[in-house]
Amino acid sequence: MFKVTFKFDGAQDVVTYAHEGEILLEVARKTNVAIDAPCSGNASCGKCKVKLVSGEIDSPKTRHISDEEYGEGWRLACVSKVTGDVEVQVPDIASAYRSRMKVADLSSKEEVAIFEKAKSDIESSGITLKNSLEVISVKMNVPTLDDTMPDNERFRRAIKKQTGIPMVRIPYSVLRKISVVFRESDFDVQCVIRRTEQDIFVYDVYKKEEPVVIGGLAIDIGTTTVSALLINMQTGEILGKASSGNGQIRYGADVINRIIESMKPGGSEKLQKAVVKETINPMIEQMCRSCGFDPMHIYRMSIASNTTMNHLLTGMNGDPIRMEPYIPTFYKTNALFANDIGISVNPDAHIIMAPNIGSYVGGDITAGTLVSMLWNRPEFSLFIDLGTNGELVFGNSDFMMSCACSAGPAFEGGDISCGMRATDGAIEACTIDKETMEPSYSVIGKEGEKPIGLCGSGIIDVISELFRTGIINPKGKFIREGKRVRHDAYGMGSYVLAFEEEAGSVKDVEINEVDIDNFIRAKGAIFSAIRTMLSSLDFDISMIDDVYVAGGIGSGINMQNAVRIGMFPDIPLDKFHYIGNSSLSGAYTMLLSKEAERKCYELASNMTYLELSTVPSYMDEFVACCFIPHTDTSLFPSVTE
Amino acid sequence: MFKVTFKFDGAQDVVTYAHEGEILLEVARKTNVAIDAPCSGNASCGKCKVKLVSGEIDSPKTRHISDEEYGEGWRLACVSKVTGDVEVQVPDIASAYRSRMKVADLSSKEEVAIFEKAKSDIESSGITLKNSLEVISVKMNVPTLDDTMPDNERFRRAIKKQTGIPMVRIPYSVLRKISVVFRESDFDVQCVIRRTEQDIFVYDVYKKEEPVVIGGLAIDIGTTTVSALLINMQTGEILGKASSGNGQIRYGADVINRIIESMKPGGSEKLQKAVVKETINPMIEQMCRSCGFDPMHIYRMSIASNTTMNHLLTGMNGDPIRMEPYIPTFYKTNALFANDIGISVNPDAHIIMAPNIGSYVGGDITAGTLVSMLWNRPEFSLFIDLGTNGELVFGNSDFMMSCACSAGPAFEGGDISCGMRATDGAIEACTIDKETMEPSYSVIGKEGEKPIGLCGSGIIDVISELFRTGIINPKGKFIREGKRVRHDAYGMGSYVLAFEEEAGSVKDVEINEVDIDNFIRAKGAIFSAIRTMLSSLDFDISMIDDVYVAGGIGSGINMQNAVRIGMFPDIPLDKFHYIGNSSLSGAYTMLLSKEAERKCYELASNMTYLELSTVPSYMDEFVACCFIPHTDTSLFPSVTE
Repeated sequence: MFKVTFKFDGAQDVVTYAHEGEILLEVARKTNVAIDAPCSGNASCGKCKVKLVSGEIDSPKTRHISDEEYGEGWRLACVSKVTGDVEVQVPDIASAYRSRMKVADLSSKEEVAIFEKAKSDIESSGITLKNSLEVISVKMNVPTLDDTMPDNERFRRAIKKQTGIPMVRIPYSVLRKISVVFRESDFDVQCVIRRTEQDIFVYDVYKKEEPVVIGGLAIDIGTTTVSALLINMQTGEILGKASSGNGQIRYGADVINRIIESMKPGGSEKLQKAVVKETINPMIEQMCRSCGFDPMHIYRMSIASNTTMNHLLTGMNGDPIRMEPYIPTFYKTNALFANDIGISVNPDAHIIMAPNIGSYVGGDITAGTLVSMLWNRPEFSLFIDLGTNGELVFGNSDFMMSCACSAGPAFEGGDISCGMRATDGAIEACTIDKETMEPSYSVIGKEGEKPIGLCGSGIIDVISELFRTGIINPKGKFIREGKRVRHDAYGMGSYVLAFEEEAGSVKDVEINEVDIDNFIRAKGAIFSAIRTMLSSLDFDISMIDDVYVAGGIGSGINMQNAVRIGMFPDIPLDKFHYIGNSSLSGAYTMLLSKEAERKCYELASNMTYLELSTVPSYMDEFVACCFIPHTDTSLFPSVTE
Repeated sequence: MFKVTFKFDGAQDVVTYAHEGEILLEVARKTNVAIDAPCSGNASCGKCKVKLVSGEIDSPKTRHISDEEYGEGWRLACVSKVTGDVEVQVPDIASAYRSRMKVADLSSKEEVAIFEKAKSDIESSGITLKNSLEVISVKMNVPTLDDTMPDNERFRRAIKKQTGIPMVRIPYSVLRKISVVFRESDFDVQCVIRRTEQDIFVYDVYKKEEPVVIGGLAIDIGTTTVSALLINMQTGEILGKASSGNGQIRYGADVINRIIESMKPGGSEKLQKAVVKETINPMIEQMCRSCGFDPMHIYRMSIASNTTMNHLLTGMNGDPIRMEPYIPTFYKTNALFANDIGISVNPDAHIIMAPNIGSYVGGDITAGTLVSMLWNRPEFSLFIDLGTNGELVFGNSDFMMSCACSAGPAFEGGDISCGMRATDGAIEACTIDKETMEPSYSVIGKEGEKPIGLCGSGIIDVISELFRTGIINPKGKFIREGKRVRHDAYGMGSYVLAFEEEAGSVKDVEINEVDIDNFIRAKGAIFSAIRTMLSSLDFDISMIDDVYVAGGIGSGINMQNAVRIGMFPDIPLDKFHYIGNSSLSGAYTMLLSKEAERKCYELASNMTYLELSTVPSYMDEFVACCFIPHTDTSLFPSVTE
């Protein structure tokens, strides 16, 4: 064993031990050291650079490292083999994540289509798209020596007179500027207010002639990715859209590791800072800059996120979420303002938080359920959110039940040797010729992009095709031989999608039995959760009318293949609907519409939560699901045909 | 003329021109460069050190500068004469002010006597000393797998059940900690709440066994000095007392200069920072440390200050205060919280602001009027606050009128060659033998302290005694000769209180005709304001029943002498009462008692403001008052006797 030391800027060294020949990136992963590797270690993206500080490592030169860099000690972690004691410097992954921040081009209709759809779905249910923010004009008398009322009182009385509402609240941020704005505008101004029956809250004051757009910000905070929409609160128009890696990735890939990290001294502040100051605020800044909007003109925001994410965002103690009896600080709270947690929009912006219904079903799911519209139909629908956790909601306009299962990162390409996120170079769809066993695939990216790995939808296709063509058996073991099927020294089979010369990386793009096994367990977790939940309600699969699939798996998901591998129930394909990032669409509609917000609270309080681990049959069901498609093939008649 | 350049750390150079032989400290003052000089340039305190950067200056060595320092270029500005172009580095005066911060020793009863008096006066008027903050115990069921209500909802319901008040508000600061405190204390806690009929606001949560003291902070923000009391909100006990120079002094000695400075780019933030971060916060820290109190346990604060000070404190636009028609942003506001302006106490601490009644009569006066108790008596009383501005209130339980006059800094020792603040080395009282013309005086400080200057009460005594003994005439000109009476080359007379060998400084302590003239104009401003205000009400001086004198002039003020020089009306001496820092006592009672707070708002709204400059006779009156005691001696029968 050799001693491997990972060094960081501004953080303590991490020391571990590795066998001779172990790949440095794998050593880092086992030790929970975050090294940026969007291609998941295929030597294709060139992001996993580390710098040799002392000792030695066996690492070839690659096209990603110039001679000069190599001379300085830079190495790709994914191709570096441990050959002795070694110390390496690891660049900060959160800044790498930030560097992949993306502001969407809204001239592409696709970017906003799912949000427009969610908005019109909500509206067609009879919910009014109206919130309590509005702009009013206020004209006051100009003070004189005979009329010396101070500015705030003059303002308050004018608003009261105009609206008929006696209670007018002027917060510090507005109080501070009225004197200047009044005098620049001859006491004839516009203001952004929130009106309720009891009171008026003044968010801002503008000069008479100034154009006023009331900005709103909807955010989906995922464990891996954070997405946001900037909207016009009066028209609902989407002004900007952005996404970014969640800077907390540095502290662990899943919620449990993040909570553990947050419990260390200063941990809570660290996790909060990573998502607020290093992720959300830079996103807001870039998105606002791209459309020329002043972030201080964002007067309300909505956040949809899982329970751990909303607790870490707000610096709350996360530990009770992961410990029996799993009690979070809040399900619902309306006590939060942008200024409290340091989000750089208007300091008085109220935060609408999509409600949690438990420690493992959070606001991302209640918001998603809202836009799935399953609460609005008498037919029974199933809503599935595929993330690092898989969450399900089943029900109709009369009842709803939810549950959560730990699917692991396979849907996002994690735990798969050639797995990667749905970005350039990822095989997103694939067919295999039954005779020749030759694959044809489509790769994300520009025309002619070479494959470097597989994203979630690609993995589904490949496994489904390998099974359909009889290359693998229901247990995921290779049972045909051919040019593209290989077995290693230990007998482990694999299928080569792209040989090195066809690939965009310096390695073959292949999928092996361990990968297939990992994916089978992920899909098994989902399907067994569906079965267990339905059984607990005395329902069976045939009673599902519609399935709404949400999450980052990508719009390329082939539902037929997902059914064929036993991930989704075997019902007619036209009943499946991919609804994208429903958490963000939900946050968007809650922000835009007070009634939608109330509806979401109502859904949350009516939703039952089923803790799968308390159902005795769940483990048996899971084991039965760890086949392609299932041990009980009668559940998948269309596959068996 | 020579070029004089003042250099600063972190600020732009100030360049001016001076005649040969001009004293550097005077050049600085004319240019509005703040150099610390508590002894007002008597070479006695050694604080006005500046460092020669280039050029030359004629400056003797003094006992305040070591040979080594002299070698490094350090010089006392008060003894340095301009002899050529020169550049000097000026140390930051605000840090000098901070270094004179004083935390009072509360074992001395004197320190708290005036506050105890104010409290019992208020109480004897029938006002209840009760505020809305209290501590309650809250016991909740410990959550289980069958009782999974989240912490905030569990807490809210328990408080609601116990108090019967349905609306319970838990702010972010509390939400953030409940999870930890509940679990450390087995869901059996105490909390600090504010209870109204409509709602409960939760300020903090403590473990069951923890001792809880609800802290409150009363602050008087003077143009020159800031004072504060830390109190126990439940008992009214004074836990700490501190004072400090106002760090804004760097930006000008009076309110007008400060406003002008605040209008420069970034000026408002600069002025706010000087008083909050550099003055108030360090005071809170020191005071709390001295009595072992956690500043985060201060849940409410009250502030009394003049209109300019409360506007600059809160970063409001000050310009309209000094420009016709003199309209401040607010008279009264309840929209401010500690967190808004960055005061380092509990972030949710509400700020009670003693109300202004105009641009030139602020919260310091309304708070002072409250504790003067003049509103509680049928007899007519006069309340006088002697500061850089003099403010007067006259009235009784039926009516009140206020006015403000610009007395200048003479009462605090400013504009007087040997003037100084009431600190060690100041002559605070003096008599002069009519025959020998020899003075006897008492000096502030330890036994045997040598005099270095005159504070306000000392100047009153000296001028009064010089007049009584016939050494000066009613115009303040010297008319007797003797060892202690001198005339300079231009014929200007002066009286030496202490020759160099008797003094604590390297110069004689003396008072000259210019000083006397300055002081006469200051006292004239006060007396003419009294006369003008009374006349406008058809009152005359004989109708005044009581006079309450407040301000930093010092408890040593000799009322008889103040009458004798024509500063105060000639009524029986037992009608005069020195009530100390009434602004701070007022803030203290407002903090402690909700009813006192309401009473202060009521006083403010009932108080009429008389703008003296609009009264045609005011200037004539002022001119008539610029004599000792007055041109109309019939107004001072006891003096004429």
